[in-house]
Amino acid sequence: MAGLSERMRQMVRPELKDFEPYDPAFVPCDINLSANENTWPAPAGLSAAVREALATVPLNRYPDPLANELRDAIAAWHGVERENVLVGDGGDELLFLLFLAFGGPGRVLVDCPPSFTVYGLYASMVGTTVEQVWRDPETMLPDLEALVDAGRRADLVAVTSPNNPTGDAIARGDIERLLDACPGLVLVDEAYGEFSEAGTALPLLRTHDNVVVLHTLSKAFGMAGVRLGYLLGPADVIDALSAVRQPYSVGVLPQAAALAAVEHRDDALAQVAAIREERERLRAGLLGLGLTVWPSDANFLLVRVPGAHEVRARLATDFSILVRDFSQAPGLADCLRITVGTPAEDDAVIRALAALVGKECP
Amino acid sequence: MAGLSERMRQMVRPELKDFEPYDPAFVPCDINLSANENTWPAPAGLSAAVREALATVPLNRYPDPLANELRDAIAAWHGVERENVLVGDGGDELLFLLFLAFGGPGRVLVDCPPSFTVYGLYASMVGTTVEQVWRDPETMLPDLEALVDAGRRADLVAVTSPNNPTGDAIARGDIERLLDACPGLVLVDEAYGEFSEAGTALPLLRTHDNVVVLHTLSKAFGMAGVRLGYLLGPADVIDALSAVRQPYSVGVLPQAAALAAVEHRDDALAQVAAIREERERLRAGLLGLGLTVWPSDANFLLVRVPGAHEVRARLATDFSILVRDFSQAPGLADCLRITVGTPAEDDAVIRALAALVGKECP
Repeated sequence: MAGLSERMRQMVRPELKDFEPYDPAFVPCDINLSANENTWPAPAGLSAAVREALATVPLNRYPDPLANELRDAIAAWHGVERENVLVGDGGDELLFLLFLAFGGPGRVLVDCPPSFTVYGLYASMVGTTVEQVWRDPETMLPDLEALVDAGRRADLVAVTSPNNPTGDAIARGDIERLLDACPGLVLVDEAYGEFSEAGTALPLLRTHDNVVVLHTLSKAFGMAGVRLGYLLGPADVIDALSAVRQPYSVGVLPQAAALAAVEHRDDALAQVAAIREERERLRAGLLGLGLTVWPSDANFLLVRVPGAHEVRARLATDFSILVRDFSQAPGLADCLRITVGTPAEDDAVIRALAALVGKECP
Repeated sequence: MAGLSERMRQMVRPELKDFEPYDPAFVPCDINLSANENTWPAPAGLSAAVREALATVPLNRYPDPLANELRDAIAAWHGVERENVLVGDGGDELLFLLFLAFGGPGRVLVDCPPSFTVYGLYASMVGTTVEQVWRDPETMLPDLEALVDAGRRADLVAVTSPNNPTGDAIARGDIERLLDACPGLVLVDEAYGEFSEAGTALPLLRTHDNVVVLHTLSKAFGMAGVRLGYLLGPADVIDALSAVRQPYSVGVLPQAAALAAVEHRDDALAQVAAIREERERLRAGLLGLGLTVWPSDANFLLVRVPGAHEVRARLATDFSILVRDFSQAPGLADCLRITVGTPAEDDAVIRALAALVGKECP
């Protein structure tokens, strides 16, 4: 996508002049495994409850600014208080608020690439310095000693567990070391947490006042289109973020849909267990083609395939399958990220990749 | 509401330490005329189309980042191009983006109070200097000469037409003078524009490259809960705002609901004409009680009533009617803002105020 016009480069705040609109690189395909969405049919009970909620909520009144009914349901689920929960317009809003409140000139964010690039993007949007502690180029695992060391000088540390796009989760004990070292806030982004058996960082909220944990309904709950994320953290941090948010950022529709979904969370979590099994089946299939496939605690796999950029293009054009190309991203040479789909979708991916790499389908 | 904790006052960016969460001062009442919502029953055709759209849109996929189908419908309606339209999570998101992109330290916003206080709030959130050109304390009209003069030194000027809470609209010729004078952008916030017969500033988009016009479905379309605003402006400004927004801020539900509403806009605009007539009936009733009621081009009236703060409290407790108290706001001594409701709601307001000010109901 083109950059800003010369006039705009003069008019925007100086740190924004090289920004460009986000391009999701979407190409219409029969099978879309590019965005870590949940492609399984929504569980019937959950789906019916969500549609009923959407059909009956009044649209003409402003939403409850803090979505207290939904906050209460989330708090009860996770064993915290309403004051520990902030609901957002997707996880994105909550990430931006963290940097808007706690970032800025003279402040330092530490992150751990290859990871979700939005932390650095939003941080730099408000003038925050970004310090990157790179992962091991082969194992893709974080360098914990370096991370803890950088964390000592950080205002914010962002760790992603499981990490996007590498798939690994961070042990709770490692997060505890980070919390002990860091004078600022440590964000544990658990957008994919339900797909992991490593456990959540949430219990650390009882012992540390500098941990914030991000969850979303976009992935495990199959509601990426609804835009509903939530942050769990110390009450005073939640208050500070509430003070800088747009008061009506979460409309009545996502509030109603999310409340119904949370009440039917057992349906979603049962499906998540099935997707975890399917992930291992897909991984075995791809390993059978001789590809490098990193272990994953999430609903996607990072795959290294020779000529990945070309392979991705041919998957789309010849097989109408869309996956995410990371081959041009630093540290991810020849890497594709493939969302775990339905068994039929995953079979199609394995067959297509077998044809493209010249292997027998296992 | 309480301010931030001492710890948070130390941790947030310095310009945010005195911020507090927004308090809509909501009290449950039978009749709520406090937030300029549309309290009339939704037109049947529009309502059915919106509910149908909500019932069928897939929820598991990320939304189209720029909502191009909706942009096209809005562009066709207003006779502009897709590139001139940016859709947002309510007008609020678009206001914030304007300051995020074009405000900041060393930049100046000029606004025109008493008006919508959010401009100054969002501007200061990113360190923008706010210069206020106060309205005449009796007529509540802007001082155009002073505004044009301040506009010469402004990076952003925010004018609201019709203005909230005073109700007056600005003539297009006056906006043109501002555009000619101001080297930065002039925001014309027409959130209540459909209720005005003064006409929109949109034609100025053909002659000036520094005008941006804000519209919303919250008021005329009765969709405050849906959160859908849109900005009309020069393509390069829209590009710059797109580059700093959160790409999925507008979910599939508001996109689908808004598209259906825009396609049925004739229903909404017919209702708006009826609400305009009802506004004049309500105004006559309040004038009949001897109150000061400013002329209004919007869906609310600004009313001066002796002891307004107490009157507002008794309206709520004795009559279960909620209106907005501005009596403590600078320049608005003894002022209440009353949304135009249904004829039955407005009759109840007139009766209640007659009782409270000791007058016969006209």
